[in-house]
Amino acid sequence: MRMSEGVEWSLHCCVTLAGLEGGGPVSTARLAASFELPAAYLNKRLQALVRAGILSSTPGARGGFQLARPPERITLMDVVAAIEGTEDVFRCTEIRRRGAGAEASGASGASGGSGGSGREFGRPCGISTAMRKAELAWRRELAAQTLAEVVAATPASAVERTRRWFASERRTHT
Amino acid sequence: MRMSEGVEWSLHCCVTLAGLEGGGPVSTARLAASFELPAAYLNKRLQALVRAGILSSTPGARGGFQLARPPERITLMDVVAAIEGTEDVFRCTEIRRRGAGAEASGASGASGGSGGSGREFGRPCGISTAMRKAELAWRRELAAQTLAEVVAATPASAVERTRRWFASERRTHT
Repeated sequence: MRMSEGVEWSLHCCVTLAGLEGGGPVSTARLAASFELPAAYLNKRLQALVRAGILSSTPGARGGFQLARPPERITLMDVVAAIEGTEDVFRCTEIRRRGAGAEASGASGASGGSGGSGREFGRPCGISTAMRKAELAWRRELAAQTLAEVVAATPASAVERTRRWFASERRTHT
Repeated sequence: MRMSEGVEWSLHCCVTLAGLEGGGPVSTARLAASFELPAAYLNKRLQALVRAGILSSTPGARGGFQLARPPERITLMDVVAAIEGTEDVFRCTEIRRRGAGAEASGASGASGGSGGSGREFGRPCGISTAMRKAELAWRRELAAQTLAEVVAATPASAVERTRRWFASERRTHT
């Protein structure tokens, strides 16, 4: 089980845009060059971030992407959900109702009860509940961390270097 | 991103074996029939659980699988790790060192410093740190839940039905 590389790309691009805040839109080509990523693939991720309301895009020669709202209001969970979706990583397919459980499940449906199995299957099983609880802990941590906090924790030298790099690229390309 | 179905199968088989504790080894065929799962695929998962020290296997006609240690000492994390591995779901490929970061990275390697970039890349970046923290919260929750606790939270009627089903299957097949 592995998260797609698009999550790492998207997180780094969003943190970069947060660090450049107020610098105007940045093109896919520039963002791709700044991390040596394939521009066409990166663009798909950036479009997904636009659809999720995390980035806004400006058309035209001087257009590009910027954060759609302040970095204090964008969490890592927002970015991960935009790329990976919001479905649970563990998905219960209710195998407990099959085989040994099928008789109870069927009897319950047909006659209204074989000793509480209707109630039993009406509740999520203990495995599904425990797996869900763990995923919520994961989501809670990601939702507690904003882009602004990641930028604040980044060494000032790195933020400054990124700003210089994008400023010089801008001069070169426009 | 989705966890393999083998995790759901393995968790249910382990909880079943925990509920049948003391009933002797259970064959792959019986476990597969109890959830209507493909026996050959399930067997691969059961073998992985043996390699991880969660199950023990007994050869022979009356052989099969049972828990290798008490269900109080097997956590959901143990089972998930046996099937999905222990690698982080989010893997940082250090794209921060490429493109805009490459110059600083290279200068640091060549001359011993371009304003702290050596120190900078020596530490994990903020994104990687935050993603790791969230995964640890997920792992901590899974590690806090034992098979014994899941069995204890299962309706008594379901545990009893499973016991009866395996007892009758045993009579039929031996």
